[in-house]
Amino acid sequence: MADNGRARPATLRTIADHVGVHVTTVSKVLNGSEANARHAASAQTVARIRNAATELGYRPNPHATSLRTSRSNLIGVLVPRLSDIVLATIYEGIEARANELGLSTFVTNSYDEPDNQRARTTMMLNRRVDGLIFGDARYDAKFVDAIAAQRVPFVLVSRHAGGHPSVTCDDFRGGWLAGQHLAELGHRQVAVAAGADYASTAFDRTAGFVAAMKEYGVRVTRPQIVYTSFDAAGGRAAGAKILSRKRRPTAIFATNDFAAIGVMGAIQAAGLRPVEDISVVGYNDTPLAANIVPPLTTVRSPMFQMGQQGVSMLSAILAGEDVADTQVRLAPELIVRETARPVA
Amino acid sequence: MADNGRARPATLRTIADHVGVHVTTVSKVLNGSEANARHAASAQTVARIRNAATELGYRPNPHATSLRTSRSNLIGVLVPRLSDIVLATIYEGIEARANELGLSTFVTNSYDEPDNQRARTTMMLNRRVDGLIFGDARYDAKFVDAIAAQRVPFVLVSRHAGGHPSVTCDDFRGGWLAGQHLAELGHRQVAVAAGADYASTAFDRTAGFVAAMKEYGVRVTRPQIVYTSFDAAGGRAAGAKILSRKRRPTAIFATNDFAAIGVMGAIQAAGLRPVEDISVVGYNDTPLAANIVPPLTTVRSPMFQMGQQGVSMLSAILAGEDVADTQVRLAPELIVRETARPVA
Repeated sequence: MADNGRARPATLRTIADHVGVHVTTVSKVLNGSEANARHAASAQTVARIRNAATELGYRPNPHATSLRTSRSNLIGVLVPRLSDIVLATIYEGIEARANELGLSTFVTNSYDEPDNQRARTTMMLNRRVDGLIFGDARYDAKFVDAIAAQRVPFVLVSRHAGGHPSVTCDDFRGGWLAGQHLAELGHRQVAVAAGADYASTAFDRTAGFVAAMKEYGVRVTRPQIVYTSFDAAGGRAAGAKILSRKRRPTAIFATNDFAAIGVMGAIQAAGLRPVEDISVVGYNDTPLAANIVPPLTTVRSPMFQMGQQGVSMLSAILAGEDVADTQVRLAPELIVRETARPVA
Repeated sequence: MADNGRARPATLRTIADHVGVHVTTVSKVLNGSEANARHAASAQTVARIRNAATELGYRPNPHATSLRTSRSNLIGVLVPRLSDIVLATIYEGIEARANELGLSTFVTNSYDEPDNQRARTTMMLNRRVDGLIFGDARYDAKFVDAIAAQRVPFVLVSRHAGGHPSVTCDDFRGGWLAGQHLAELGHRQVAVAAGADYASTAFDRTAGFVAAMKEYGVRVTRPQIVYTSFDAAGGRAAGAKILSRKRRPTAIFATNDFAAIGVMGAIQAAGLRPVEDISVVGYNDTPLAANIVPPLTTVRSPMFQMGQQGVSMLSAILAGEDVADTQVRLAPELIVRETARPVA
């Protein structure tokens, strides 16, 4: 990251040409302190340069700025939504580790909308965050690739994408554990409420599940996998779709505990008995899982630790360490409770 | 709020005496822009004043500073914890309304610990927030009274305290609706999983419930009310305590949906059947309530709107409007589903 200290010259030059001053004057005014600006040019020229910067949409390289002046000690965090307890728990880990390191965190909901991701990231950068943690990366990685091209330091949590530095659960392994458990209970007709079709969590958990089933000689085909969202409503919709098909499954794997509860709602709404008629396995082991009736069999993911380690990784990046391509995968654990039963 | 523009003179004077300069010089250096500081004193004196301010623990009145310079357009939000979907949803409303008004929000978990509340509030003020929204006010109001004495603009959401400006649910009414519903179903032996014993939400919901029961000639006494926490674990603990008593209730009111799920877990753990043996009513109507099996009877509180209106109120305060003693109480709604049944 040797040239992080230099702002993008093309844009500074555009402004310099526009105002008719030297590019170093523009740099001092836009990237230096107020005192720097006053020494570099007259109040009138400073104003003209700043107006031009606004008009032309110039934004300083925030990392360059923070290196030149001081750190803000502020980390920006984007999550799909904090009302998803999984992301809220990851954020608790982020906040806890940040506090230990003397950093403050700034979190915002993107609702998984690319327009929001862009707008909220811009807001964060304008607020001079030292770096970003994304909990809402999309599998196509277009947006995070663009952020990486701007040399903004960031780490992904929860979902990985495009080989960027990330701390996630080993979701393939987690899906595998769920599949193995159901296969060993004798289930051969299975379906998956897979979550969002743009998230590594959905793809990896489903792929692991399918791979485990294959080990037991069971082929899980595309119509048995329904992508919706990682919440109760998504699970309910996926469950309804799965149950509308001719071949009814004896077990459904939901890639999220809340989706699992939605699947159980759909089973009941279809006039069937959750658990007795159709086994259900969730994912994450949120606090609710142990308390619903009957208690939910699920796969525990280390949410809090994911947040902590995400901050540690970002902190290492900010300290200049090379973590390129570092993909931390935390181990999941199968938690056997009562919603997955042997096939009758 | 006429004297918000003046910083606390005693502290500025302490620094002035310490450094041996006039108090207005100290004020210009500590409360003005960088250019102000440079004009007010030599670089050496500026440095001595700043060092003294750090040593003596001086903190500028942030509202005074923001009036003198420009607004930060930043709102600080404290919540008990974002992994409580109720607070996360209120925060979604806060963020949505703030975005509409061109404000950014900064949210942090206090975990309902007074030490955290103090430390995180200080962090927010040091980050120059224009005002604060507290979702974690304690009924004794000691902390928010102290913040009010510092003339920091703030609004309470979720919980009211000490007559400070607040936007909450009409929780007495909500508890009353739950009590009326159970009384009309014939329940006479009832208990309450009341939530945290320092929150207006716990007290008001319980008081409303007790008042409704009294209308139907039922006295709910202190041993029938168990204070724990607003989550599944708290509900489970409260449920276990209630069921350990000699007189078993036919219905339990939990002041939180997750606590209601915990109560059902406790009922099952005690070898009884939730709903069939003991009716349960929750509070908030979180998305899960409609999806658990059987669907939860609960009291809907307008969480998202609470957040929106909290920001609107804070925005009015920042614009200089007098909202002293304004206590907005949003209407709750009873949502009848399947967990409260007529007494056998």
